[in-house]
Amino acid sequence: MQVSVIVLAAGQGTRMNSDLPKVLHRMAAAPLLHHALATAQSLDPARIVTVTGHGGEAVAAAARDWSEAVETVVQDPQLGTAHAVAQAAPLLDGVEGEAIVLYADTPLIREETLRAMLEARRRHGVVVLGFHAREPGRYGRLLTQGDTLLAIREFKDASPEERAVTLCNSGVICAEAATLLSLVAEVGNANAAQEYYLTDIVELARARGLSAGVVLCDEAETLGVNTRAQLAEAEAAFQSRARAAALENGVTLTAPETVFFALDTWVGRDAVIGPNVLFGPGVTVESGAEIKGFCHLEGCHISRGATVGPFARLRPGTELAEEVHVGNFVEIKNAILDEGVKVGHLTYLGDAHVGEHSNIGAGTVTCNYDGVMKHRTVIGKRAFIGSDTMLVAPVTVGDGALTGSGSVITEDVPPEAVAIGRARQVTRPGLATRMFEKLKSIKAAKAKGQS
Amino acid sequence: MQVSVIVLAAGQGTRMNSDLPKVLHRMAAAPLLHHALATAQSLDPARIVTVTGHGGEAVAAAARDWSEAVETVVQDPQLGTAHAVAQAAPLLDGVEGEAIVLYADTPLIREETLRAMLEARRRHGVVVLGFHAREPGRYGRLLTQGDTLLAIREFKDASPEERAVTLCNSGVICAEAATLLSLVAEVGNANAAQEYYLTDIVELARARGLSAGVVLCDEAETLGVNTRAQLAEAEAAFQSRARAAALENGVTLTAPETVFFALDTWVGRDAVIGPNVLFGPGVTVESGAEIKGFCHLEGCHISRGATVGPFARLRPGTELAEEVHVGNFVEIKNAILDEGVKVGHLTYLGDAHVGEHSNIGAGTVTCNYDGVMKHRTVIGKRAFIGSDTMLVAPVTVGDGALTGSGSVITEDVPPEAVAIGRARQVTRPGLATRMFEKLKSIKAAKAKGQS
Amino acid sequence: MQVSVIVLAAGQGTRMNSDLPKVLHRMAAAPLLHHALATAQSLDPARIVTVTGHGGEAVAAAARDWSEAVETVVQDPQLGTAHAVAQAAPLLDGVEGEAIVLYADTPLIREETLRAMLEARRRHGVVVLGFHAREPGRYGRLLTQGDTLLAIREFKDASPEERAVTLCNSGVICAEAATLLSLVAEVGNANAAQEYYLTDIVELARARGLSAGVVLCDEAETLGVNTRAQLAEAEAAFQSRARAAALENGVTLTAPETVFFALDTWVGRDAVIGPNVLFGPGVTVESGAEIKGFCHLEGCHISRGATVGPFARLRPGTELAEEVHVGNFVEIKNAILDEGVKVGHLTYLGDAHVGEHSNIGAGTVTCNYDGVMKHRTVIGKRAFIGSDTMLVAPVTVGDGALTGSGSVITEDVPPEAVAIGRARQVTRPGLATRMFEKLKSIKAAKAKGQS
Repeated sequence: MQVSVIVLAAGQGTRMNSDLPKVLHRMAAAPLLHHALATAQSLDPARIVTVTGHGGEAVAAAARDWSEAVETVVQDPQLGTAHAVAQAAPLLDGVEGEAIVLYADTPLIREETLRAMLEARRRHGVVVLGFHAREPGRYGRLLTQGDTLLAIREFKDASPEERAVTLCNSGVICAEAATLLSLVAEVGNANAAQEYYLTDIVELARARGLSAGVVLCDEAETLGVNTRAQLAEAEAAFQSRARAAALENGVTLTAPETVFFALDTWVGRDAVIGPNVLFGPGVTVESGAEIKGFCHLEGCHISRGATVGPFARLRPGTELAEEVHVGNFVEIKNAILDEGVKVGHLTYLGDAHVGEHSNIGAGTVTCNYDGVMKHRTVIGKRAFIGSDTMLVAPVTVGDGALTGSGSVITEDVPPEAVAIGRARQVTRPGLATRMFEKLKSIKAAKAKGQS
Repeated sequence: MQVSVIVLAAGQGTRMNSDLPKVLHRMAAAPLLHHALATAQSLDPARIVTVTGHGGEAVAAAARDWSEAVETVVQDPQLGTAHAVAQAAPLLDGVEGEAIVLYADTPLIREETLRAMLEARRRHGVVVLGFHAREPGRYGRLLTQGDTLLAIREFKDASPEERAVTLCNSGVICAEAATLLSLVAEVGNANAAQEYYLTDIVELARARGLSAGVVLCDEAETLGVNTRAQLAEAEAAFQSRARAAALENGVTLTAPETVFFALDTWVGRDAVIGPNVLFGPGVTVESGAEIKGFCHLEGCHISRGATVGPFARLRPGTELAEEVHVGNFVEIKNAILDEGVKVGHLTYLGDAHVGEHSNIGAGTVTCNYDGVMKHRTVIGKRAFIGSDTMLVAPVTVGDGALTGSGSVITEDVPPEAVAIGRARQVTRPGLATRMFEKLKSIKAAKAKGQS
Repeated sequence: MQVSVIVLAAGQGTRMNSDLPKVLHRMAAAPLLHHALATAQSLDPARIVTVTGHGGEAVAAAARDWSEAVETVVQDPQLGTAHAVAQAAPLLDGVEGEAIVLYADTPLIREETLRAMLEARRRHGVVVLGFHAREPGRYGRLLTQGDTLLAIREFKDASPEERAVTLCNSGVICAEAATLLSLVAEVGNANAAQEYYLTDIVELARARGLSAGVVLCDEAETLGVNTRAQLAEAEAAFQSRARAAALENGVTLTAPETVFFALDTWVGRDAVIGPNVLFGPGVTVESGAEIKGFCHLEGCHISRGATVGPFARLRPGTELAEEVHVGNFVEIKNAILDEGVKVGHLTYLGDAHVGEHSNIGAGTVTCNYDGVMKHRTVIGKRAFIGSDTMLVAPVTVGDGALTGSGSVITEDVPPEAVAIGRARQVTRPGLATRMFEKLKSIKAAKAKGQS
């Protein structure tokens, strides 16, 4: 069954109290918009149309950033949700199959929920997603008989009996694309706010003789983000779900509540993740790898048997092969470390390739920036980079070569060679004592001068 | 309306099981005493008097440390809360306006609660702060009619009906200063503990024909700290409040439950605070700055558009101008970084000034301590400090100057100059292989010798 | 009263979805098995026998790793819990006193619970540990009269009335050793699974005229680990208990929920532990020491008055004497730091001894590995190690000696001497400007070439 998804992303989000458009605020290291697009994508849709409005350019750019296949259309002025959907009509003219309307500020809807809605479309012309609200408050109520939706009653129009109903409207809706578009074209704005409400299509559909149905989901899925507190709440909900899924998949999380996944994190079975690990976008961790506490990972791949941390930072473009060890206070960026490489301590590797089984000493730095351009460092297999080696890129260290501690390597080192760039030690007996005495007397004199 | 505040801080805190006086234990990076003083100060009071006792010298010093304007008086011996207030009488003799009694071990009372008490003083001679206790236990009960307080009934004297009352006495009290002092002078100690209880002034006031009133607050505000567990509970309550306030003010907290604010932290709108950020005292973060995960900040100012972390430590005296970038494993202390400065990795900057748009390479250290004294490092604008540069202070690097990677800079570098202090690289072909062979044979020989 | 403990550790743990045997998964930095063994050990038992099965070799090794005194026996094939206990019979033949059966996947049973069972043995021939289950589900029900156990009813055999009983069987059992072994020998396997159930000994004991008794514990103690989610739940329960105990003992935990203890962590009174501190195995912290936020500690001893962190990593073999200060981005391994030593920043000390009151500059590294062997560094008293000193081990720096910043120390430094190994600074006026101009023109030319 072919599906198209319309993602409404035009809202201003005044209550966010922010210069950033609401749907670009981040949850799980991705804009809210990307979560809605990911859910849409999970249906393998024919088309995805994002309706932008406030901050339209930035939102459209974020949509394209997620996938070039996402189309965008601007709603301006913003006259309500039906009006927003209507903006997508020219793009979807003649499209076959189903259409689902999602909201970019409602990032927790599950794929299986949408599939249940598509399934319910076999029995109903229009399908609305509902949920039982713990505090129904001013939500619109769904009046139903079985899974048939009789009416959506706005709170202000509801009788006391109707207000006692806890089944509420999420706003997510599904219908045949052509039907949806023709229905929204009929929606009027004869209401207090003079807005065109998408909800009104249910009544219009029933007037056409189409049946309306309801699919239920957990209230947690319908959490809408309107404030920073709700954003934090949505983040927490996402993380709970991601942590439970990881545990279910055979990942050990010592302290699940301290691990923060990104939207696209992938972790294999029997991987072990210690407390306080933060995943940015684009991280994959293979089976049996271990990430110790206090790690910050973005855009990296960690292979089977590798150990990382504690206190490691892996930045985009980092690839750790099997059995690589990255220790504490180590930063790696845009670098490939082949099998068995060890980088134990206090090191920065950027724009580099390190061959298998090489050992990188503490305090090593790839000097990849000359103030104007970035350059690459290449280290061969089984090389030994002494502590505090400065590798002034572009530079190559050959297989089996060694650099002396404290050396500044500015020229390529051939395989099996030793390169040293350091001054000889000079030792002057008794000088320390005389120096400290002198410094103390200077200090005393200064103190006297100040008093 | 002029107000004076008496802060009772004499208690021993036996149940803390500590050598430190109870009110000096820290919550939100400040002694409990400072929280009570901050609440007092929020009323813009004419006078603040702290009554000390156990650990009196240290407590008085902490009070002065908060503000020289805080007066202290010693209660010795400690004969009860009325006796404690009576010690403040000589200092407050003849003072006009209201007096409020606070407790240094009850750090969560809100300013608005105290203002409500002052407001209630228009209707009552003495105003007591009460709360509805979830578990009233052995608290004194407030017997009331409307907001009029008829009596405070100690638990042991209460009838079953009175014990069913959940409205309890917090101990916080407000009256005209002169009245308060004359009332406490009348309190007797004819009770089992032979203590003078502040609570007794309510009955004495009513005997004088003064009315007594009650103001209610949330039970959470009245949390008293008597054990380390309660200290942790109070910390958690403070943090919840601070996190909610930050979200409300338009700050993004990815994981609010992992961010720990200090009493005086200030964070601007649209700032983004990642998970696991710890604020010590004296931090201000301007709008739009970003603090990534795993940062530890104390006594620093972070300007608009600056990015900090992950894994950054800013210590007192750090000022980051706009668009400064501080990266991972970087420590900064007593240093000013002008606009656009970048300090990406593995660096220690102490006692320094860095001019705008300068770039500090990985592994740079300001060698600010010679074993006896500390010295300053000054770096100009648009300078380029190569990786692993040791800046032996006192030293100056001029505008637009460059230091070579791995250099030890002991002399000033003029503007636009290059300074290098390193040995030339020497490369010896084939030596690494021979060296490793030799080391392996030594190892093998040793192993043989041991077996 | 002499006690022997049989620890059943043969289960496969299919639901863990892991290649690692279930009882080797870690909680509080120790295998689950060690928790059961520690509880057993707390009774000062005459004998401990671990029954292994799946992953038997690895489990037996872990048992021996905990203590050479633990005996192990293999159950193969695995025919039920009574069958498992029966495997221990040859080892315990003729042993006197009591026997208790524990489960390696039930790591939260308390010592006092087992002592209560031993106490109850004065009144009963067999004692079973029971608990009131919030959701009794399919647990076996304990049918009792007072503390006398009438029967254990499997769920499938229970009447509706019996199913309403919430008192359930934990499986932990206690009897005289000889009795236990003779009873398990009688257990049959005439049931659906054809397994020999330990539970059946209660009925057999009663048939012999022995009374059976029940001791109750909190349901939390009986948490069995069958999935990764339950492992995380057990970890959380362990940590809650450990945090509460630390607070009770007079330790300050700013944010208890962020501190993770190991099974054997010991922290003294008036120690202060900041947020986000992870304890690995083998850490002791004396009274009055302070561990700041973001520390990772394993196998180390921290003395009174020492301060550690933030961002410090102490690895096995680290001993910090009184008043030692270890600062940020510092790693220490297998090293003794005497009184008053300061290691403030960005340092790696491995395989070293540092004498009292020495100061280690930022960026210092003990180069302890030559690619084949590890070597030691010895630093005397009141020495001053300049920033970025490479100490190429084996090497000794004498009392009161000084090393210059940026030096590579390859030869021993006598007491009171100054050792410097660095090139003289060369400054070339105007060169920086010319260099950057040239680099910019190269970059521009490249960009042109690419366009």
